[in-house]
Amino acid sequence: MSQRHRAVVLGATGTVGQKLVHLLRDHPSFEVAAVAASERSAGRSYRDAVHWMEPGSPPEAVANLIVQTVDDDFDCDLAFSALGSSVASVVEPRLAAAGIPVVSNASALRMDPATPLVVPEVNPDHLELSQFPSVGAPIVTNPNCATVGLVMVLKPLHDAFGINAVHVTTLQAVSGAGYPGLSALDILGDAVPFIPGEEEKLCTEPLKILGRRRGGRIEPASMTISAQTTRVPVLDGHLLCVSLRLRQAASPIEVAEELAAFRGRIAGLDLPSAPDNPITVLAGDEPPTPRRHAGAGGGMTVTVGRIRRCPVHDIRLVALVNNTVRGAAGAAILNAELMVKRGLIGASATEARKAS
Amino acid sequence: MSQRHRAVVLGATGTVGQKLVHLLRDHPSFEVAAVAASERSAGRSYRDAVHWMEPGSPPEAVANLIVQTVDDDFDCDLAFSALGSSVASVVEPRLAAAGIPVVSNASALRMDPATPLVVPEVNPDHLELSQFPSVGAPIVTNPNCATVGLVMVLKPLHDAFGINAVHVTTLQAVSGAGYPGLSALDILGDAVPFIPGEEEKLCTEPLKILGRRRGGRIEPASMTISAQTTRVPVLDGHLLCVSLRLRQAASPIEVAEELAAFRGRIAGLDLPSAPDNPITVLAGDEPPTPRRHAGAGGGMTVTVGRIRRCPVHDIRLVALVNNTVRGAAGAAILNAELMVKRGLIGASATEARKAS
Amino acid sequence: MSQRHRAVVLGATGTVGQKLVHLLRDHPSFEVAAVAASERSAGRSYRDAVHWMEPGSPPEAVANLIVQTVDDDFDCDLAFSALGSSVASVVEPRLAAAGIPVVSNASALRMDPATPLVVPEVNPDHLELSQFPSVGAPIVTNPNCATVGLVMVLKPLHDAFGINAVHVTTLQAVSGAGYPGLSALDILGDAVPFIPGEEEKLCTEPLKILGRRRGGRIEPASMTISAQTTRVPVLDGHLLCVSLRLRQAASPIEVAEELAAFRGRIAGLDLPSAPDNPITVLAGDEPPTPRRHAGAGGGMTVTVGRIRRCPVHDIRLVALVNNTVRGAAGAAILNAELMVKRGLIGASATEARKAS
Amino acid sequence: MSQRHRAVVLGATGTVGQKLVHLLRDHPSFEVAAVAASERSAGRSYRDAVHWMEPGSPPEAVANLIVQTVDDDFDCDLAFSALGSSVASVVEPRLAAAGIPVVSNASALRMDPATPLVVPEVNPDHLELSQFPSVGAPIVTNPNCATVGLVMVLKPLHDAFGINAVHVTTLQAVSGAGYPGLSALDILGDAVPFIPGEEEKLCTEPLKILGRRRGGRIEPASMTISAQTTRVPVLDGHLLCVSLRLRQAASPIEVAEELAAFRGRIAGLDLPSAPDNPITVLAGDEPPTPRRHAGAGGGMTVTVGRIRRCPVHDIRLVALVNNTVRGAAGAAILNAELMVKRGLIGASATEARKAS
Repeated sequence: MSQRHRAVVLGATGTVGQKLVHLLRDHPSFEVAAVAASERSAGRSYRDAVHWMEPGSPPEAVANLIVQTVDDDFDCDLAFSALGSSVASVVEPRLAAAGIPVVSNASALRMDPATPLVVPEVNPDHLELSQFPSVGAPIVTNPNCATVGLVMVLKPLHDAFGINAVHVTTLQAVSGAGYPGLSALDILGDAVPFIPGEEEKLCTEPLKILGRRRGGRIEPASMTISAQTTRVPVLDGHLLCVSLRLRQAASPIEVAEELAAFRGRIAGLDLPSAPDNPITVLAGDEPPTPRRHAGAGGGMTVTVGRIRRCPVHDIRLVALVNNTVRGAAGAAILNAELMVKRGLIGASATEARKAS
Repeated sequence: MSQRHRAVVLGATGTVGQKLVHLLRDHPSFEVAAVAASERSAGRSYRDAVHWMEPGSPPEAVANLIVQTVDDDFDCDLAFSALGSSVASVVEPRLAAAGIPVVSNASALRMDPATPLVVPEVNPDHLELSQFPSVGAPIVTNPNCATVGLVMVLKPLHDAFGINAVHVTTLQAVSGAGYPGLSALDILGDAVPFIPGEEEKLCTEPLKILGRRRGGRIEPASMTISAQTTRVPVLDGHLLCVSLRLRQAASPIEVAEELAAFRGRIAGLDLPSAPDNPITVLAGDEPPTPRRHAGAGGGMTVTVGRIRRCPVHDIRLVALVNNTVRGAAGAAILNAELMVKRGLIGASATEARKAS
Repeated sequence: MSQRHRAVVLGATGTVGQKLVHLLRDHPSFEVAAVAASERSAGRSYRDAVHWMEPGSPPEAVANLIVQTVDDDFDCDLAFSALGSSVASVVEPRLAAAGIPVVSNASALRMDPATPLVVPEVNPDHLELSQFPSVGAPIVTNPNCATVGLVMVLKPLHDAFGINAVHVTTLQAVSGAGYPGLSALDILGDAVPFIPGEEEKLCTEPLKILGRRRGGRIEPASMTISAQTTRVPVLDGHLLCVSLRLRQAASPIEVAEELAAFRGRIAGLDLPSAPDNPITVLAGDEPPTPRRHAGAGGGMTVTVGRIRRCPVHDIRLVALVNNTVRGAAGAAILNAELMVKRGLIGASATEARKAS
Repeated sequence: MSQRHRAVVLGATGTVGQKLVHLLRDHPSFEVAAVAASERSAGRSYRDAVHWMEPGSPPEAVANLIVQTVDDDFDCDLAFSALGSSVASVVEPRLAAAGIPVVSNASALRMDPATPLVVPEVNPDHLELSQFPSVGAPIVTNPNCATVGLVMVLKPLHDAFGINAVHVTTLQAVSGAGYPGLSALDILGDAVPFIPGEEEKLCTEPLKILGRRRGGRIEPASMTISAQTTRVPVLDGHLLCVSLRLRQAASPIEVAEELAAFRGRIAGLDLPSAPDNPITVLAGDEPPTPRRHAGAGGGMTVTVGRIRRCPVHDIRLVALVNNTVRGAAGAAILNAELMVKRGLIGASATEARKAS
């Protein structure tokens, strides 16, 4: 673990920021060297500033860091961003311009044509969009928490059979709304079929991720997605109830086989956060459920079940994605691990950018 | 309230049976004159046999009744059946043969060609299927709890625009599983995308209800339904996330207007349990939710919201149905009220049947 | 209903404010003539300013009122205050000085020696503390939501047997924390044995309420209370697990009889919000529970169960109080009803105060 | 791991049985060599018979075992019993008589004078009660899930200051009721202040555990315990709200110090399941909560917080115990580990028993 890349976590006191700090504990390639948050937290030790919600206590080394503001300068090799969208749209470009690669969970730049929106198993080649940004370092984003689960399922099936249309209805956990997020009075014993802004993301982000890179731009995949998102009183784990219209006929068994066989385009790269299987398929009627399957593969495996014929389209199935790991912090870390492999993070990357 | 019809409640100690007893308290047309349940309860007073889950206590008059077995003979004008399917398939025909009209919430005979499956606002004319059964009295069934909500929404839109295809994903309350039903360990903080047998009902029952009566049989509606059902930790109220492919184009506003204007085919009959509006439409992004809207219209009104264009089909919307009232006990009572109006229950009905 | 007293509801958009508006719908003695809230809501119609959480919609007449700020002048006969403590400590004295009687749920002045802290069934004579305030109109407060439940139980037993010491552990609903109150992430599937400031109130307020009025002051009851409060994922209804050391021996049966016989010192006054029975006692091992008993007596009845010998003290029991009705809005309304009877609200009260 | 003791798990398909199978995965001293359950499960593979609720899947080696009935003979070195009380009272003595040491979580024999009721940190010497049973092998029991948490807290304080009286009110998780246990309809959004039989256990078991061994019998500790138990919608982790009357005055700080310093009477024995700290003490107002602290020390550490003066007794505090690990399966395993150290399990034990 000789030399680890020094990372700043932006928005470190929020739920995704905490998950980043938690998952980076003992990471072989990265160490948290700085933490930044809002003015309210700045100047205090991370230990005092954070309302820690992960198990145990914050890692000792991070707990003692003094929280900086996001407007500070950072002596770091990369930045993990768990910022809100409006702040991210200012801070992330500033850091990138200053030569610090930004690995972002924020939605601000996801659909920006020059910014890669990456799920390593699905579209690692999109990274090259920004391999040599004209100025400064790249910004690489990961998708919305529900989107990750959806594209993981769509990718192998789109490759194998082609997908024309997707109906998806989600049952999403409260952790997806951050902290404090939802009032207990709004969700206890209830289910709320409206999450502001969420359906738009679920309908557009997959098209970019599944799109084809043509030189410096992405040609979006040509399929149609219809999304209904709901919030349910579950802590962690988003369920996606999916119906697919395929271009080429496929039986439920063929679909199950494609999903179970999926290894993704980073197989063999040995990225530390990549699970053995990006997708696990349950047999028979066994349903994926948040409590039971959100922990699969350390939170990085998507669990699929109830694959069957759809009387209206072709195939129906249910997928479960851990929204805080695979859908947020773990997604960003896996992106950063891929960027290290591709030479986009680290000393040589800095030099290459300077030289270019 | 001079002369009320004397009813036996079959399965009176279960959750639907209790809801029947509760809703029939002070009913203008019916009085609970007998209660029947399994051998285990038989011979005890209803007060002692029931694990009462409705508010307050059982009505005094019913509390003092001695629970009979379902194999007994009943001196009654009608039977409300909240029996399980396998018991119902034996008991209900026996009572009907003995001249007692049966109003049933059981699934046993719903799809039987000679048995009407009725939602009064939607297909009251199906009652005539059994107006003059060859032998004995009629059996009239109401649909599955989620089906009721779906057909209430489909009916006005099918009449106005025609419906080709329906995608529905439900979020169903635990009360739909009866008592004891689900173990707390299986649903607390979780969501379970599988309810045995439920999707089949949701795909087939609406076709019969929306079908056309041709003499003594029903020609099912020609539309295709694809259903995914899920269980969520909610007490009462099933949410239906629906996407529709229409035969004739319609805007969300036109859809909202048709739904809000729907009065159903019993308007003017003044049935005691019929709500002022079978459907209430929420404006803008306001979502129907179980806790907020399950009580609408005394549990008999379906609440619809989030009506919008569907990128894949034509229209998406969300509906909320109270599964224990409109979806079960209230549905049966409304059917019985309609049967009284149509002369299918009561002395004259008995005479007519004898004469025929 | 000829002439109703015109009331302003202060803090009308909060949860207690909404409950006041809801409970005052069609009240025989009061009408909501004005609503006030924070600057953020002021100037908008109540309909638009409120995130309505009671059933249905706000009453039409109130929905159309324009929300005022709490610093405005009000042309009203009384004020119901659902303000936060710090705002209340400024606004309530100002209104009282201006001659408007204030009926307050705020904690600010509860322990103020010159301010009555009243539960009508328990200490209606404390009202006289402020019958003729030197300047302006009286301020009358009701206790903390858990305190109400406790004193209702303590009063008849203290009168009958004398109480030396009280151990109480509460399980409190999330509605007690207002809106947004607790984050769903802090309570879903969890229980939190700490509510800031709550235990102090539960240990001190009952002593004032059970105290004896000596001229213009209250001599607190001489008993000791030890309280542990916890928050649980329940919507409405606080449970109190109570153990009592009595001065005079009493059996569980005697305790049950005293509690069941309790009518309180307003019996016969015919106050509209007073329940038939302030306390209902359950037999045997049947436990009071929030879902089952919070609605008793329209939310104004306290339900007691599991009365038994305590191996350490003398008696153990469990009580359930509806925290938003009997513990907040209903408590204030019942106080106001009593004040009307006592001539503390209305034209004659105003004249009397002017004359004095 | 050369030679592990071969264990049969009795009641292996229940929740405690599953937790035993889960915790014994890769245990250094024990291997699950047989599983037994009711007639209904017998004859099927464990994989097919069990409704597995622990993470992932059952360990491969166990999954392939054929479930036996509890009346079978077992070729094993010890038995872990997760049987219900009535079955246990027959099966456990039979196995012990046959020479198989039984480590039992059942309540059947806990209060039997000749049977040790052991928490290793608290009363390891009670094991000697049965070191040389007149016939066969010993039966060693662990206490009720809530009792374990209570005695862990009482022990160091009783040793240091003496305890006269204990008031305890519990908030208990649903997993304590086993599977299916509670109906979701009975606990979702509710809290139930009655658990049949639980309070008796909490009042009596600690007196035996804290009692002194006098030759072949235990003289119970002389203190009085008053218990109120409640069930709350929490998955894992029982909260105990405790108030103590001490024999010798002690400040909250002194109490905190004694608890934090407690290592128990197995320190240095290096038992695999013993946590580093049997008790962790939280500072200030930070409350222990089930979700946050049930996992402490792998579920074997009791977390204590909110230590303060009690106005009625001397000290109030809150403790959190993981009911399925420290309170059941982990308790039994720790007992078995201690028995191995003491030579009560294994070949030498068998020989010693034969020789005696």
